[in-house]
Amino acid sequence: MQHEIDIEVRYYETDGQGIVHHANYFKYFELARVKMLESVGLDYAELERQGILMVVHSISCRYMLPARFGDSLRLVTRVDRVTAARLDHSYFVYRGDSLLAEGKSTLACIDPAGEVQRIPECLLERH
Amino acid sequence: MQHEIDIEVRYYETDGQGIVHHANYFKYFELARVKMLESVGLDYAELERQGILMVVHSISCRYMLPARFGDSLRLVTRVDRVTAARLDHSYFVYRGDSLLAEGKSTLACIDPAGEVQRIPECLLERH
Amino acid sequence: MQHEIDIEVRYYETDGQGIVHHANYFKYFELARVKMLESVGLDYAELERQGILMVVHSISCRYMLPARFGDSLRLVTRVDRVTAARLDHSYFVYRGDSLLAEGKSTLACIDPAGEVQRIPECLLERH
Amino acid sequence: MQHEIDIEVRYYETDGQGIVHHANYFKYFELARVKMLESVGLDYAELERQGILMVVHSISCRYMLPARFGDSLRLVTRVDRVTAARLDHSYFVYRGDSLLAEGKSTLACIDPAGEVQRIPECLLERH
Repeated sequence: MQHEIDIEVRYYETDGQGIVHHANYFKYFELARVKMLESVGLDYAELERQGILMVVHSISCRYMLPARFGDSLRLVTRVDRVTAARLDHSYFVYRGDSLLAEGKSTLACIDPAGEVQRIPECLLERH
Repeated sequence: MQHEIDIEVRYYETDGQGIVHHANYFKYFELARVKMLESVGLDYAELERQGILMVVHSISCRYMLPARFGDSLRLVTRVDRVTAARLDHSYFVYRGDSLLAEGKSTLACIDPAGEVQRIPECLLERH
Repeated sequence: MQHEIDIEVRYYETDGQGIVHHANYFKYFELARVKMLESVGLDYAELERQGILMVVHSISCRYMLPARFGDSLRLVTRVDRVTAARLDHSYFVYRGDSLLAEGKSTLACIDPAGEVQRIPECLLERH
Repeated sequence: MQHEIDIEVRYYETDGQGIVHHANYFKYFELARVKMLESVGLDYAELERQGILMVVHSISCRYMLPARFGDSLRLVTRVDRVTAARLDHSYFVYRGDSLLAEGKSTLACIDPAGEVQRIPECLLERH
């Protein structure tokens, strides 16, 4: 499963070097996951209201080229693996044909009390 | 009532112009209010657990000079007015003797359901 | 002159109270100004490359109702006044018909050395 | 080489789940690197003025336990490897004796034009 979103770099996402601060890529990845859920008919806000909270277990990013304010980026997100306990994603940030950054994450699912729970069926079947 | 904190500008607080992004001053002001409460023996995290949530009703800032990464700032916060319904603060951001920015805010108090409540006694009596 | 953008609240824009952090409205306003420039054929990234930097001289916001993750907001931005020295905007954040927040700002124009300059003609004539 | 800083979780660093947003750990790591440089007499702001820019080549974090507003964290940063081309760090975030998160990064050095340069001697000899 794969999904793609467009991201326009916002001014406040750049830092003193004039480039997108590296921590902001993780915010882009989060946005991509939410949009990917939307694309299969799942509303993450609604999931949280039902007590299904996705938490990041681990995440990483490798940066090849900087992104700047005004850049139009394309973020491709891929589901790599789905088990009852974990969701693995890969992320690829492009400007045109240039790959700017590449990331990976593993998510788990918790209840409102913070206890790990099985990934719910509604998520499993749509990934 | 007046309180003072030191703030060291963090790299990620600067933007593409190499200066502290104007929205970050409001984060400094929030930090100052929390520290001011601490200085009179109140723990805001604990207040929230007791169902006392402070919300910003209105806030403003005027910017005279930019702050840069590495700057050591002094933020003076003053309580201007306290009523059963509102807390008014003023903020003054200095680098050395230079006044960089000046802000004002009005806060109200809500319960976890979002209903406005009277400012609790514990807050009133220490301001 | 008036312009309108849609904003979908991103998860990381919410805070511990589950609502959009008040400082983030100023980021929305910035985004709105950039988009407004775009709508009249001006590219703010390009302006900065030409040495035209817009800086916030003062800004304020009043909050009526909270916004939450998943909300679709409509942000109406209005140019209130344009002089050779200043640009004044008003901002109105709606969810459906409800006005959630209302802001105002005054911007000035500086050169890369930080010196105040006249608002360039290209900006004046399109506002 | 190892260095330690204390971090008090700021309110705006928490997200809709009431915990520190995972992207903010990368901001803590950045802060730790700057403070570590300071501890050996290097001022990163000054390095940038001299045309020595550190950029993140890759970074990762694993999250074991959430941090909340009001938490006092201890962030231990360790230099793992220094070569002419790369600086590797590890990060360990503790609350009391509990390890909340663990990170790794590789940094490179660029000049203001974005060209990779050798890590300067002043950095090499103090790591």
